[in-house]
Amino acid sequence: MTRTDWKIAPPDVEAANAARARVDALTKPLGSLGRIEALAVQLSAIAGRVVDRAYDRKAILIGAGDHGVTEEGVSAYPAEVTPQMVDAFLGGHAAINAFARAAHADVYVANFGVCGPGGPPDQLLGLCVAPRPANFARGPAMTAGQAAAALAAGARAVDEVLARAPYDVLALGDMGIGNTTSAAALVAILTGADAAGVTGRGTGIGDERLARKREIVAAAAARFPARAAGDAEFAMAVAAGVGGFEIVGLAGAILAAAARRVPIVLDGYIVAAAALIAQRIAPVAIGYCIAAHRSQEPGHRIALEALALEPLFDLGLRLGEASGAALALPIVEAASRMIAEMQTFAEAGVATETGAAPS
Amino acid sequence: MTRTDWKIAPPDVEAANAARARVDALTKPLGSLGRIEALAVQLSAIAGRVVDRAYDRKAILIGAGDHGVTEEGVSAYPAEVTPQMVDAFLGGHAAINAFARAAHADVYVANFGVCGPGGPPDQLLGLCVAPRPANFARGPAMTAGQAAAALAAGARAVDEVLARAPYDVLALGDMGIGNTTSAAALVAILTGADAAGVTGRGTGIGDERLARKREIVAAAAARFPARAAGDAEFAMAVAAGVGGFEIVGLAGAILAAAARRVPIVLDGYIVAAAALIAQRIAPVAIGYCIAAHRSQEPGHRIALEALALEPLFDLGLRLGEASGAALALPIVEAASRMIAEMQTFAEAGVATETGAAPS
Repeated sequence: MTRTDWKIAPPDVEAANAARARVDALTKPLGSLGRIEALAVQLSAIAGRVVDRAYDRKAILIGAGDHGVTEEGVSAYPAEVTPQMVDAFLGGHAAINAFARAAHADVYVANFGVCGPGGPPDQLLGLCVAPRPANFARGPAMTAGQAAAALAAGARAVDEVLARAPYDVLALGDMGIGNTTSAAALVAILTGADAAGVTGRGTGIGDERLARKREIVAAAAARFPARAAGDAEFAMAVAAGVGGFEIVGLAGAILAAAARRVPIVLDGYIVAAAALIAQRIAPVAIGYCIAAHRSQEPGHRIALEALALEPLFDLGLRLGEASGAALALPIVEAASRMIAEMQTFAEAGVATETGAAPS
Repeated sequence: MTRTDWKIAPPDVEAANAARARVDALTKPLGSLGRIEALAVQLSAIAGRVVDRAYDRKAILIGAGDHGVTEEGVSAYPAEVTPQMVDAFLGGHAAINAFARAAHADVYVANFGVCGPGGPPDQLLGLCVAPRPANFARGPAMTAGQAAAALAAGARAVDEVLARAPYDVLALGDMGIGNTTSAAALVAILTGADAAGVTGRGTGIGDERLARKREIVAAAAARFPARAAGDAEFAMAVAAGVGGFEIVGLAGAILAAAARRVPIVLDGYIVAAAALIAQRIAPVAIGYCIAAHRSQEPGHRIALEALALEPLFDLGLRLGEASGAALALPIVEAASRMIAEMQTFAEAGVATETGAAPS
């Protein structure tokens, strides 16, 4: 059974209005901090009150999972890179670890379905649904029960991370060789976009592999005629048909973090695909999400548009691992500090904007 | 006498090549960290060797100065806000202080020419050239000697900051009511752009003040027919004609930091105008510069194009105070950590990209 009782409250409009009033009274020209002001208002709506402290307790959660579709040669890397990279994350040697240190954030890895030649590595959060989903080019990726289990595992991952420390903000990322193929199929089906337009080069495949990847995505999309928004059962059927355990797990993580009123920073294409699943299950959850960046994957723009999220930056990233989300964490902290720590004109005794003739 | 012996070496091409080779060997798909990779290469070229440590020692230097042109009613705020905001910076209550805490950076203020009703506040770096430049709508803003003194004061500010700690990176920002008018005139003259196109609403002025501001900028630009790049004497004449002490001081700071091979993160429009002055004096200095963001001021895009700098992000900022540059500091640190701390595929024992048929 798919869990449907996520109990996600909408972000708080009154807190947002109070935050906007405070932001407008701070010692700066009206509106002069642009997106940072909007972020502070969103963070307040999420918290249910005007943010009054620095969001300096930051966690990064990477959902990891293997993909049966790698059998089709859709990636430039062999599938065993997934557990190897998970080992690198846990050892502190990967890009996300370097970025996390720059962002003063803690890194967690959730194993939703990684199976290497040597077996799953010793995971921080062991939530493995199954060693890997089936090759969705030849049939459904998983059973309905597995999809529901992956969604629930994502929620448990958030519970476990928040049990370690009362984090102010959670960045979500992914690791899974083959998962841009799965994400492309999800985005094609859930947005109705053309398969070719949402299927990119992932880790950097050549033209031949790209052509095969597009065929697979188009064939998978043809099995699921587009359905109107808001249909949770349809989303779970699509997730089971073409998803990966880490993608469905990340959808569960988004829903659980939203239910706990924790702001969620989304990384790239894979996490956006997970957010599209979450959006079908509980549209209100997207109000808890902040899109960190627009990646090089062409479908990411389409997914973000369907989520109605505007990314903070575009640095030409296409790595995953929450790398872009990690770079956004200090910006989120800056927004919290702006509203919590800056003085208003009245508090500072600084002259306000004048409509009078200049001296 | 204008100082001309800045002794700025070009960024090191061999170090850049070695950095690119290392970046390409790190455990990530080739090119998958986009601008972050380019930043790591630039930081290495600036250092003269492949960066091998985290750039976690970060300083922010705000150049402050008053502007005689405020007499013309070009700002929404009265001139006394400049010293009041300097007080706020030193008290830790302003936007830049909140952002600096998020970026784990130290804040310094250089008083290049601030004169409030109660006299200049107690400055951290007292380098005041004069209480304020003259109103450039009615004559030259400063004497040639004052312009040279401001440029030298900027270099001294960098020396003083770097004497406090061996900072890895320096973010530059500005405070000065009226200074977007001065910056617009500088950008119009130094890029040859139309005055109307480089003159924006600054702190948020209405149509009437904007029309007056454009008149002033156009009239000032008409006094200086555009001259080809690379003419230091012309740049200093323009700086004296329409500049502000903090803008010329920031130009000196850019030149001094470049001479000391310290990477410089540029904030918004005012600092870009300063960089255009520095570019005329020593074009090679711009290789030491990183443009943090594109601001809301319409002329900023034109200035960045003339500097051939691509900003890291556009968050709709138009505050100054180094606020955008502060947000970029963790990104610069992330780039340094990527190249210094990530493992290569060989070091990690992770399977590399395969051209072979998939398994």
